[in-house]
Amino acid sequence: MILHGYWRSTTSYRVRIALNLKQCAYEQCTHDLRTGAQRDARYLALNPQGLVPALDIGDGTILTQSPAILEWLDATYPAPPLLPADPTEAAIVRSIAATIGCDIHPVNNLRILDALRADFAATPEQVSAWIARWMTAGFDAIEPQIARHGDGYAFGATPTLADCYLVPQVYAAERFAVDLSRYPCLATAAANAATLPAFAAAHPDMQPDRDPL
Amino acid sequence: MILHGYWRSTTSYRVRIALNLKQCAYEQCTHDLRTGAQRDARYLALNPQGLVPALDIGDGTILTQSPAILEWLDATYPAPPLLPADPTEAAIVRSIAATIGCDIHPVNNLRILDALRADFAATPEQVSAWIARWMTAGFDAIEPQIARHGDGYAFGATPTLADCYLVPQVYAAERFAVDLSRYPCLATAAANAATLPAFAAAHPDMQPDRDPL
Repeated sequence: MILHGYWRSTTSYRVRIALNLKQCAYEQCTHDLRTGAQRDARYLALNPQGLVPALDIGDGTILTQSPAILEWLDATYPAPPLLPADPTEAAIVRSIAATIGCDIHPVNNLRILDALRADFAATPEQVSAWIARWMTAGFDAIEPQIARHGDGYAFGATPTLADCYLVPQVYAAERFAVDLSRYPCLATAAANAATLPAFAAAHPDMQPDRDPL
Repeated sequence: MILHGYWRSTTSYRVRIALNLKQCAYEQCTHDLRTGAQRDARYLALNPQGLVPALDIGDGTILTQSPAILEWLDATYPAPPLLPADPTEAAIVRSIAATIGCDIHPVNNLRILDALRADFAATPEQVSAWIARWMTAGFDAIEPQIARHGDGYAFGATPTLADCYLVPQVYAAERFAVDLSRYPCLATAAANAATLPAFAAAHPDMQPDRDPL
């Protein structure tokens, strides 16, 4: 398989974690979001939306959208499972994932921040406040869920889809200096997961296309 | 079951469609987003995120986040299925859903538009342009997917999760006067689905809490 992504893209980071947890072999093809490489004609032919990630599963099919890719990975490579077998428990895991995947990440994505700067002359301080606002609103929702359902990880005692979303989002929080002191359960779960080899190997700083340290 | 929602919330609309397709009986409890009723203490006790929809499944569990609720409904009430059995086909359906659920809806949500007005003094024209921009970017990605995979509906010849997302998004497009003429396959699929009783009964104008016509 070939993962089209970018080292610092948190949606690509999610997929790298899941591929590693499932012990899938994959190559990476990088698209530098800072130079707009994801809108090059060759990549648009594969993924007309011009976003990363996309997963080439080897039979000519290109899967897009990280929530869809993660569900596909879990269905296709069942071990270890990323969702509890009980549908209600799975709904709680997916709810944590969706709060990050719908309510935090997309509104803080690079294209949105660029639009705030271009259309509304947003200052760096306003951009930082925008990022912190939506991240905080989402984490406020997730913290009590992890407090109630977590047991070492975001949900239960093994990593789930929720951790695949949470660890990259905490990476983004630290990058943008969002205060996590109000979220002890969330921060502990993310720190636990981050130490696992599958998560550590997926970290942006471990990717071949990263900026020089 | 009790659906906490709002007539014009497109995420509540998605869940109403799925509940109807699955022939589930449910009551509705409305929270007027225009007056901030979703942040009332009584509702926050049920859903600390203060967003709609939330689904009270009757055993004390409150499910949140429409993507999680829809997957739960499909797992719990398997007929008719909202996802193809083949994982790759299911990934395409989920990809269409995620483009709407992550890349269009959240960035055009009421709280984001309110923030643009409050923080950046966005004019009505700027708000309309913002809405159209992200809707168009998402529909540009979805149109070729429906052209390739649709057969009456967004994917194949029966309604799927993709139609549960698409029909409410097209309702929002029409409400905000976004031009759909570039998306003939998308518009046809949405129009076909909208005629089905399950979809028609879920339309905002058919809800008990709607504004007087």
